[in-house]
Amino acid sequence: MHGLIISALLFLVGQTSARVLSNKYDADRHILLSQEAELFLGSGVKLTEDEAKANDILMHWKNKEVDEAFANPEHYNFSKHFFAYRNDVSKSKVYQIIKKMPKGAALHVHASMMLDVDSLLRLTYEDHLYACYGDGDLQLRFADTVPAQLCPFEWNLLSDLRNASGDVAAFDTELRKHLTLYTDDEDFQNSDINTTWERFEKVYITVAGILKYRPVREKFIYESLKNFYDDNVMYVEIRSGLHELHELDGTVHDRMYFATLYERVTEQFMQDYPDFIGIKLILTSSRSKSPEMVRQRIELGRRLKKENPEFFAGFDLVGQEDRGRPLSEFLPLLMEAKEDMDFYFHGGETNWFGTATDENMVDAVLLGTKRIGHAYALMKHPMVLAKVREKDIALEVNVISNVVLSLVRDVRNHPLASYLAFGLPVVLSSDDPGAWEADPMSHDFYVAFVGVASRQADLRLLKQLAYNSIKYSALDNKGKIRLFNVFVRRWEEFVKDVIANDSLEV
Amino acid sequence: MHGLIISALLFLVGQTSARVLSNKYDADRHILLSQEAELFLGSGVKLTEDEAKANDILMHWKNKEVDEAFANPEHYNFSKHFFAYRNDVSKSKVYQIIKKMPKGAALHVHASMMLDVDSLLRLTYEDHLYACYGDGDLQLRFADTVPAQLCPFEWNLLSDLRNASGDVAAFDTELRKHLTLYTDDEDFQNSDINTTWERFEKVYITVAGILKYRPVREKFIYESLKNFYDDNVMYVEIRSGLHELHELDGTVHDRMYFATLYERVTEQFMQDYPDFIGIKLILTSSRSKSPEMVRQRIELGRRLKKENPEFFAGFDLVGQEDRGRPLSEFLPLLMEAKEDMDFYFHGGETNWFGTATDENMVDAVLLGTKRIGHAYALMKHPMVLAKVREKDIALEVNVISNVVLSLVRDVRNHPLASYLAFGLPVVLSSDDPGAWEADPMSHDFYVAFVGVASRQADLRLLKQLAYNSIKYSALDNKGKIRLFNVFVRRWEEFVKDVIANDSLEV
Ligand SMILES: [Zn+2]
Ligand SMILES: [Zn+2]
Repeated sequence: MHGLIISALLFLVGQTSARVLSNKYDADRHILLSQEAELFLGSGVKLTEDEAKANDILMHWKNKEVDEAFANPEHYNFSKHFFAYRNDVSKSKVYQIIKKMPKGAALHVHASMMLDVDSLLRLTYEDHLYACYGDGDLQLRFADTVPAQLCPFEWNLLSDLRNASGDVAAFDTELRKHLTLYTDDEDFQNSDINTTWERFEKVYITVAGILKYRPVREKFIYESLKNFYDDNVMYVEIRSGLHELHELDGTVHDRMYFATLYERVTEQFMQDYPDFIGIKLILTSSRSKSPEMVRQRIELGRRLKKENPEFFAGFDLVGQEDRGRPLSEFLPLLMEAKEDMDFYFHGGETNWFGTATDENMVDAVLLGTKRIGHAYALMKHPMVLAKVREKDIALEVNVISNVVLSLVRDVRNHPLASYLAFGLPVVLSSDDPGAWEADPMSHDFYVAFVGVASRQADLRLLKQLAYNSIKYSALDNKGKIRLFNVFVRRWEEFVKDVIANDSLEV
Repeated sequence: MHGLIISALLFLVGQTSARVLSNKYDADRHILLSQEAELFLGSGVKLTEDEAKANDILMHWKNKEVDEAFANPEHYNFSKHFFAYRNDVSKSKVYQIIKKMPKGAALHVHASMMLDVDSLLRLTYEDHLYACYGDGDLQLRFADTVPAQLCPFEWNLLSDLRNASGDVAAFDTELRKHLTLYTDDEDFQNSDINTTWERFEKVYITVAGILKYRPVREKFIYESLKNFYDDNVMYVEIRSGLHELHELDGTVHDRMYFATLYERVTEQFMQDYPDFIGIKLILTSSRSKSPEMVRQRIELGRRLKKENPEFFAGFDLVGQEDRGRPLSEFLPLLMEAKEDMDFYFHGGETNWFGTATDENMVDAVLLGTKRIGHAYALMKHPMVLAKVREKDIALEVNVISNVVLSLVRDVRNHPLASYLAFGLPVVLSSDDPGAWEADPMSHDFYVAFVGVASRQADLRLLKQLAYNSIKYSALDNKGKIRLFNVFVRRWEEFVKDVIANDSLEV
């Protein structure tokens, strides 16, 4: 009897200590997971009751999508090239919700690639467009007589070629291929970064030919803004080198004229769509240009800042980073320019660890860049990462661009996952959505939210990303407040809409 | 005159301040890059004069290889599947150097997949091997009469089938496909993680069938150790579940027997190759097993530790992480076992961010794991990362495995790049080199060094990786010193050899 009692006591003690141990473990586990959850971008956002409802709906669909893919990874899209699943995206409930979601601002887009390809194709129906088909290339140019530009074969009116083709639909299908990278050719999807960029640059040359004509550029700007507006983007910072524009008779407008054209069209657009709060320009130069050419572009920046201070946001260098000059080759220039203007440098859009290209992020942060375009290589640079955090430098992440331009295939390996987990100041953008037939912003938000972010990341992340696009914009405080107010109003409508539509659809 | 002097003075002041500014910038830039260089794994290694010479040779070839790829990324191998370039690797000068380099220890290899396929194929020439060809499957079993195991078709002696085939070479080519994942079929190279693992498990079943036969297993162990030894690996920690072994007449040996067999064969091997300092066992259970089955395996671990304390290193759970049970399902068991044995858990071998699988690393560190197998998802988990650093938990990185088993394609996106940049305690290993026809360690070192690490990472990184394999092994201090001494002696020979051979080859 005595022995039994002791056994029972020992048993109870054992039970207790196991339970204590287990409670301690659970607490430690909870703390660690909570710390990670608190660090995650968007964790500071407090959801209202309605937002929580909308979040439940959103997460229902997101988790369904992720869990189905987890069970059947052979059908998982985000490990494939964007082109392999682009046409399926519209079926996703999460995408449908994101499509309607206000996204704040687009902070990383290049002027010539902002418009959807269908609209661009329509612009080729404008009169007086000449075409020069080369060996796989296409030059386009508006003119009242045969263009003076060199053509290896011959210039013809596109309308003549189209009419002579006998099959307009087939002709336009062919033409379209010169206006977009989008293709179902798997060889292209698998091609290396130089091959992709060479194709990208060809598309750019074709499109840019159309856009040099002032009246078409005017329509292009207006329609581009409409694209972004319809995708629920209320403010855009556009990267452009501001080339010369011409009239039909060959009259040439200088780059300053282009700036005023932007302002004029935007003014018109804002009258038509008063919710839209405007655009700013990040003036760019190709990083392949000589320091002297870049110096001239910076000079233009100084003039713009003086004459159009509201319009001018800052300066950047663009083009394939691996093949262009690193920032370090422009140092004296840029150190001087630093006193006069803000920088929004591309940096780290590379997979080549330890090269001169890879050091661009170092110079970008030392030159006081306000944001970094891509920063794809950031997780290989702990001290740059520390600077990014210390100086609160926003990272302009363009996931689909990085897939199309051959940096990564399976987006679960995109470093954005780490940026979100580390709570870095991320803004999402789309780089050149027209060039790969992506939405102005919705596709990028969708891929980032479902493909890259944690399964547990929810509406708070999306709202924070929209917040960040306002916070890290080049707007002054007044501008930010205006944009914020528009955002908040639209966000409330969005939340109501998600709740209202869901009761019908689930 | 007076005006001119002032101008000149102002000019000089301007010059000076620009120079001061520029000096300050250069200093800041230097500091930032130096801080990153100092954080990089291996930066603490001081090279002797001879090592510096060997390093120059190594870096000559490495930079040539990287720079050529940078200029011609269409020929770059490391963005492709390992199978697409495996046969070209031997041409690389860097690989040839790495092949001769002492690598210390292999700390993450699974018992059944340690041997090269040619040797494995030779083992199928042993007498009494029966084969059961199923629908794309193959079972193999040694027996003195037709095996009792279920066969959907029929058991035949493999030698009969081979002789009846009329073309032994063609027969063996077919047979080989059941022993390896290696293939030039691009569809397989592009397949999803579940499809890859299903094929991997089929290969495992075929191979395991051969290895249940005690005399063949004995040869297999010996030849596996020889493989690693020839690849300049002097100590191996082998993960195995220690299954039962049988004799030809059906006599069955229990798992403890298997342990003593390992010890006996290793003893013999060490007599034949006195440089080799031994093996230890990390006992494993499949993570698909029930907690009760796992409990039994842990019980075996306790017994092993008691009876073969030198041989037993610790415990781990293995198998496709996404599809197996997460560690959290075994918590009570593992918390109890924690008191009795060390853990070497696989963790984070997944791309599924925010899932239960993805939390395995959390439990691994809370359970006090000595190292983490793969930790592929670590950069998405800042608090786990902090624990890894705080507790100095080594990361067992197997780059080629992660490519073959569908986590990543372009290895420049492998998180190892970040681990190296952050100076985390990395050890390289090869997981299942036999299954993908990789060298025991050299291919993994080569891919990590040229494909993943910074262009600037040099011999110091390689030496540190070898050091780490000793430091983070389960050896006691005496064992580590023995291994270290063998390593140092061989390293000196290696360095001399690099210098001596280079004068002939450059
Ligand atoms: Zn860009
Ligand atoms: Zn493993």
